[in-house]
Amino acid sequence: MLQIGVIGAGRIGQVHIRGICSGVPHAHIRGIAAPHITETVEALANNAGAEVLTQDFRALLRDPKIDAVLICSPTDTHADISVEALAAGKHVFCEKPVDLGLVKIQTVIDAVEASGLKYQVGFNRRFDHNFQALRRTVADGRIGQVHMVKICSRDSEPPTARFIPSSGGLFLDMSVHDLDMARYLSGSEVDEVYAAGSVLVDEAIGRAGDVDTAAILLKLRSGALALIDNSRQAVYGYDQRAEVFGSLGCVSIGNDAPSTAVLSTAAGITAEKPLWFFLERYLPAFQEEVRQFIDAIENDYPVPVGIQDAREATLLAMACARSAREGRPVSMAEFR
Amino acid sequence: MLQIGVIGAGRIGQVHIRGICSGVPHAHIRGIAAPHITETVEALANNAGAEVLTQDFRALLRDPKIDAVLICSPTDTHADISVEALAAGKHVFCEKPVDLGLVKIQTVIDAVEASGLKYQVGFNRRFDHNFQALRRTVADGRIGQVHMVKICSRDSEPPTARFIPSSGGLFLDMSVHDLDMARYLSGSEVDEVYAAGSVLVDEAIGRAGDVDTAAILLKLRSGALALIDNSRQAVYGYDQRAEVFGSLGCVSIGNDAPSTAVLSTAAGITAEKPLWFFLERYLPAFQEEVRQFIDAIENDYPVPVGIQDAREATLLAMACARSAREGRPVSMAEFR
Amino acid sequence: MLQIGVIGAGRIGQVHIRGICSGVPHAHIRGIAAPHITETVEALANNAGAEVLTQDFRALLRDPKIDAVLICSPTDTHADISVEALAAGKHVFCEKPVDLGLVKIQTVIDAVEASGLKYQVGFNRRFDHNFQALRRTVADGRIGQVHMVKICSRDSEPPTARFIPSSGGLFLDMSVHDLDMARYLSGSEVDEVYAAGSVLVDEAIGRAGDVDTAAILLKLRSGALALIDNSRQAVYGYDQRAEVFGSLGCVSIGNDAPSTAVLSTAAGITAEKPLWFFLERYLPAFQEEVRQFIDAIENDYPVPVGIQDAREATLLAMACARSAREGRPVSMAEFR
Amino acid sequence: MLQIGVIGAGRIGQVHIRGICSGVPHAHIRGIAAPHITETVEALANNAGAEVLTQDFRALLRDPKIDAVLICSPTDTHADISVEALAAGKHVFCEKPVDLGLVKIQTVIDAVEASGLKYQVGFNRRFDHNFQALRRTVADGRIGQVHMVKICSRDSEPPTARFIPSSGGLFLDMSVHDLDMARYLSGSEVDEVYAAGSVLVDEAIGRAGDVDTAAILLKLRSGALALIDNSRQAVYGYDQRAEVFGSLGCVSIGNDAPSTAVLSTAAGITAEKPLWFFLERYLPAFQEEVRQFIDAIENDYPVPVGIQDAREATLLAMACARSAREGRPVSMAEFR
Repeated sequence: MLQIGVIGAGRIGQVHIRGICSGVPHAHIRGIAAPHITETVEALANNAGAEVLTQDFRALLRDPKIDAVLICSPTDTHADISVEALAAGKHVFCEKPVDLGLVKIQTVIDAVEASGLKYQVGFNRRFDHNFQALRRTVADGRIGQVHMVKICSRDSEPPTARFIPSSGGLFLDMSVHDLDMARYLSGSEVDEVYAAGSVLVDEAIGRAGDVDTAAILLKLRSGALALIDNSRQAVYGYDQRAEVFGSLGCVSIGNDAPSTAVLSTAAGITAEKPLWFFLERYLPAFQEEVRQFIDAIENDYPVPVGIQDAREATLLAMACARSAREGRPVSMAEFR
Repeated sequence: MLQIGVIGAGRIGQVHIRGICSGVPHAHIRGIAAPHITETVEALANNAGAEVLTQDFRALLRDPKIDAVLICSPTDTHADISVEALAAGKHVFCEKPVDLGLVKIQTVIDAVEASGLKYQVGFNRRFDHNFQALRRTVADGRIGQVHMVKICSRDSEPPTARFIPSSGGLFLDMSVHDLDMARYLSGSEVDEVYAAGSVLVDEAIGRAGDVDTAAILLKLRSGALALIDNSRQAVYGYDQRAEVFGSLGCVSIGNDAPSTAVLSTAAGITAEKPLWFFLERYLPAFQEEVRQFIDAIENDYPVPVGIQDAREATLLAMACARSAREGRPVSMAEFR
Repeated sequence: MLQIGVIGAGRIGQVHIRGICSGVPHAHIRGIAAPHITETVEALANNAGAEVLTQDFRALLRDPKIDAVLICSPTDTHADISVEALAAGKHVFCEKPVDLGLVKIQTVIDAVEASGLKYQVGFNRRFDHNFQALRRTVADGRIGQVHMVKICSRDSEPPTARFIPSSGGLFLDMSVHDLDMARYLSGSEVDEVYAAGSVLVDEAIGRAGDVDTAAILLKLRSGALALIDNSRQAVYGYDQRAEVFGSLGCVSIGNDAPSTAVLSTAAGITAEKPLWFFLERYLPAFQEEVRQFIDAIENDYPVPVGIQDAREATLLAMACARSAREGRPVSMAEFR
Repeated sequence: MLQIGVIGAGRIGQVHIRGICSGVPHAHIRGIAAPHITETVEALANNAGAEVLTQDFRALLRDPKIDAVLICSPTDTHADISVEALAAGKHVFCEKPVDLGLVKIQTVIDAVEASGLKYQVGFNRRFDHNFQALRRTVADGRIGQVHMVKICSRDSEPPTARFIPSSGGLFLDMSVHDLDMARYLSGSEVDEVYAAGSVLVDEAIGRAGDVDTAAILLKLRSGALALIDNSRQAVYGYDQRAEVFGSLGCVSIGNDAPSTAVLSTAAGITAEKPLWFFLERYLPAFQEEVRQFIDAIENDYPVPVGIQDAREATLLAMACARSAREGRPVSMAEFR
C-alpha cells in the first residue's frame, strides 16, 4: 500500500482524494495539506481514513511514511513544491502546468533527473476514455501511417478578462493541451507551427492582450500535418473532439453527454448537449492518471506523461503565440 | 451522518460499499457482514473506515448506531432478513428481487407497514442516467400524452441452463425489470398482458422448462400500449434501450459504450459495442439509488421505488409467464 | 425496348412516369391513360415521348405494341383492370392494394395463373434502399438465424375521419405494409397474430369505427417472433424503422432526412426531422420496383413481389383486425 | 419552355441530360453535340426527345431555337466555347473549371459583361442538400456571427500520377472547391492563406511535382478563421464534411451513405461507408444547379454562382500553391 500525501485540497485536490478512495488500488491517503481546513476537507479526510490533516505542506514532505505527493496547489507554487518534494525523496504527481516559464520548468527537470524519482504531470486528457481509445487505435496501426491529426477544443464559457493576464494567454492556457495531444496522438514531434488568433467572443479579452479564437497548423516531423481549433466559448457545451487520418482510414472521437436521450418533436430531433464542465467530462480521467502514476511507482515503469512532455507542450504553445503575434510560421528550431 | 450496515459483500455488496465511499454524502459505512471475510472485503472495510466487520449479520441489526441496512445477500434470504431488519428498527434497502413468491413479499409488505420505516427495492435501472432522462422527458410533458412504450432488453450472455430453475424463468428474472420500467416510464398501471416465448438461443434452456426469447404486449390502463422484447443473448453486448411515443413526439435512449470512438476503414464505419456487463453499464445507477435512499431517510421523503412496486412487477411477470404458457391474453384482474 | 402503358396519371402515376423517363433502362412509355388530361399530364407525355395520350384505358389494352401496363388508377378499379389487362395479354404492375377483399383478389390470382404473364404488386417499401439493405444483411446470414423482427411504422399525419370507412381500417391500410415486411425480412410465414388497437390520436377516427394506434405481436413459423407498432400520427415526421435480431447480432435501419445537418446551440444538439411525405421517402423505391418489373419481363424472372404476397398480407391484416376486435390471438389456420 | 443545347455528352454531360429529363421544369433538351455519337448518347437523345444530335457543337450555337447551352466538354475547351456561345447570344452553364489560367478566365469575364447574358459555373457542391442546409443555417443567423469554418474534403481514390500535370495540382484541382465553399459558407472574402502540403499517399504524385495531402488556414476579412484539410485518398469513401462555428453555436454536416443500416455483431457496431463516387454523392446537386440556372434565366435573377466566383476560387487556389511552395502566408493583396 503506497502512502499518499495530497498538497492542496481545492477543487482538483478534492477530485483526486475522492478518486483514490473509490478506485485506486494499493494507494492510501495518509495526509492532506490545505491552507484552510474547511468542513468539506475534514469530511473527506475522515472518509479517506487520512491520518494527517495539516495546514503545512512541509509536514507531509517530512513524514517518512509518505511515498508520494500529489501537488494540487496554485499554479505558481507547482515548481517550487515539486523541487522540495523531490529533495525530500517523494515521488511527485504535479497538476499542470508545472510552470508558465521555461526557467522554472528547467529547475524541475534538473531536480527530477538528480532524484531518480517518478515525476508525472497532470495532462489529464491523455487518460480520458475517448482520447485513449483514439490513441490506442492509432498505436495499434489500425489506420496505418498517420497523415493528419485534427483537434477541436472549445471551452463552454470564457474566463473573465481579469483572469487573462495570469493565464499565460490562450495558447499557453488552452492550446497547450491540444499541442500535447497532437504529439500523443501522432507519436511524432512537431517541426513547425503556424497560428492565427482572433478576438470574436469578448472584446475585453482583446483589450487584455489576448485572443479568444485560434487556429493552428502544425508540420510534424513524420511528414504528417495537424490542425487545431480553439475557442474560449462554445454555448452548446464543452467541445472536445479529435480525428486522426491515416493510410488505412480514420478514427474520430466525439463528446460525452449526460445521457443518450434523443427527443423527436415537431421542432426537430434533439440530443443532449455535451457535458458542460471539464471536471465532469474528465472525472474518470483524473482517477485514471493517478492509477497509472501508482502503477509506475509500484512496478518501476516510466510515468505515462513526464516533465519533458510538459516542457515540449509549453515550447509549442510559446511558438504558437509567437507565430500569431508575428504572422509567420515559427520553426521549433528557434527554441532548441 | 447516517450509519449504514451492509449485509452481504459479494459482487453487488462491494459495488455499494465503493459507491457510498466515493460519492454518497451523509452516509458512513459502519459495519459490513459477510459469511466469508476475504482480503478484498477487509481492504474495502479499511478504505471505508468501517468500525465493524462481522460474519453475523445480526450483529449489525443489534448495533444501535446503525440507522439503515443494505441487504445484498443471496436472493432467498432477502425477505427474511428484511423482516428481521425492520423489526430491529432499521431502514432497509433490499436488492431485487425481494422474493420470487407472493407470500414472502406479503410478509415484507406487512412488516414495512407495521414499522413506519423506509424500505427501498433495488430496481437499479430506474436510476440509470438514460432511463432517468427518458422518464424526466415524459414526466415533463415534452412528448404530450403517452401513446406507446417500447423496451428492448437483451442480456449479453445467457445463463447456464443449471441456473434456470432457481431463476424463476425469463419473465420473473429478466422481464420483471422491463415490466417495472413500463410502469415507471408510462406512469400508468397495466390492465392486461400478452406474452410469447421461444427457445432460440440455447436448447438446454428449453429443456430446463424456460424460454430464452420473449415478446410482450401490454395494454395500459391509460389506453396506451407497450411492447417489450427480451433475449438471453446479444452477442454485440448488453442491449438496453427504450422509446416512448406520445401526442407531441417521441423520446428514445440507446446504449452506453466504452468510448465515442468511430473507426472508418475500407471495412466500414465502426463504433464501439455497448458496455458488456450490467454492473459496468449500471454502476452509477447503483450509487444513485443509494443516494436517493439516504435522502429519503434524511428528509422523510417517500422512497423512489418501494415494496408495492416490487409486488406489482412480480405480478406482471407472473401474468406474462401464464400468458405465454396458456397462449392467451391475461387480465391483471385475475391476480387482484 | 419494352413498351409501357400507364393507366392513371394522378400522384402515383406521375411518379412512375418520371421514374421511367429518368432511369429505367429498356422501357419506353408508349401510352398514358387518364380520365382528365391536365396540362401537367400533357407535359409529362411530351417529355416522355409518349405516342398515345387517351382518356380510355382500354385504348392502351388494345394497343398491340404495348407489352405491359402500370395500373395507377383508384383502388376499387385495380382488380377489374388487372383482369382485363391480363386478358389482353399485357404484363401488369398494379399499385397496392390489389383489392381490400379476398374475392376480387382471387379473381386476379386466377387470371394471373391462366395467363402465364408477369403480375407485380406495388409493395414499394420492399424496394427502399434501407429495407433492401436490411433484407440483404439478413439473407446473407450476417446476423445468423432470425430471432426477432421489429417494425416501427408511423404516419406523419392522420387521414381525415371521412377517409376511414373506405380505407379498410388501420390494419388493412397501414399495417398491411408492415405485415408484408415481416414476411419479407424474416423469410418466414406467420402462424398466429395478436393485435391491440387504441384511439389516442383523433376521437373522430374512433367514432368512424377504427383505431389510430396499434401494436401487433406475430408468431412466425420459424419460431421467431415479430413486433409491429403503428400510429396514424408522428408529429416529428414519417417514421419508418425496422430491426432484425438473430443469433449472430442485429441489424437496424432508421429514417432518411433532408440533410445530415446537425445544429448545436444552447438549446441542444438538433438534427433534421425524417422526410415528411411518403412519396419523398420512397421516391427511389418507386423507380426501383418498376426497374425490377421490367427486368422480370425481359429475362423471364419471377416478379420480386407477386399476387400471392398481396393475398398473404391482406389475410394477415384481416387477422389483426379480428384479433384486436375479439381480444384474442388469431391463428392463421382460421383463414386457410 | 427553355430550349437547351448540351455540348459534350461524356460522363457529366449524360448526368445533366438525365437530370433535365426527370426533373427540371420548363427546360427541354433540343440538341446534343458530341464528338462521338455512341449508342448510349443516341438512346439518351431519344428518351429526351432531342431534335438535334450533332458532332459539331457550333450547330447548336447557330440554332436560333436554342436559348442556353451547357458546356460539358473537356476542360481546356471551356473558355473558348464559352466566349463563342455568349457571342452567339446563348446563356451559358459551364462545368468547372472555366480555365486553369487567369488570362482565359478574364476573356470569359469580358464576354459575359459585354453580353448581358447569364453565365453560371458548375460549382456543384454549393447545390448539395447538405451544404445548402449548412449555408442556410448560417445565413439565417442561427449560429450568430461566424467565428470559424472547417472543411474536410478527401477523395476516395487518388488520380494516376499521369493525370497530375494537366490537373493544375491538388490546390487548383481539389482545394478550389473547398476555397469556394469557405467563401460561400462564411459569406466573407479571404484576406490571407497559409497552406502546407505533403506527399503521403503516393510517391509518384510527389515525383510529378504535386502533393497529395494538404492543410490550409485562411484568415477571412470578417475576422473569422477557416481550416481546410484535403487528401487524395480516403479508403473508407469520399469524405466531404464541413462545420461552421459562431457566436450562438455550430452547425455541421456529414456524409451521405447508401443506407441507414447499422449492423451490430461481436465485431462491433458498423454503419455503411460514405458514397464512394462523387457523381453518386452529388447527383441531385447536378440537377439542382441546372434547375436554378433555368430559374435565373426565366426570372432574370442573378445566377447563384458566377464567373467572378470562379475567378476568386482560382486566385485562392493559386495563393495556396504559392504559400505551400514558399512556406509563408500569402496575402491576397499580392493577387489584386
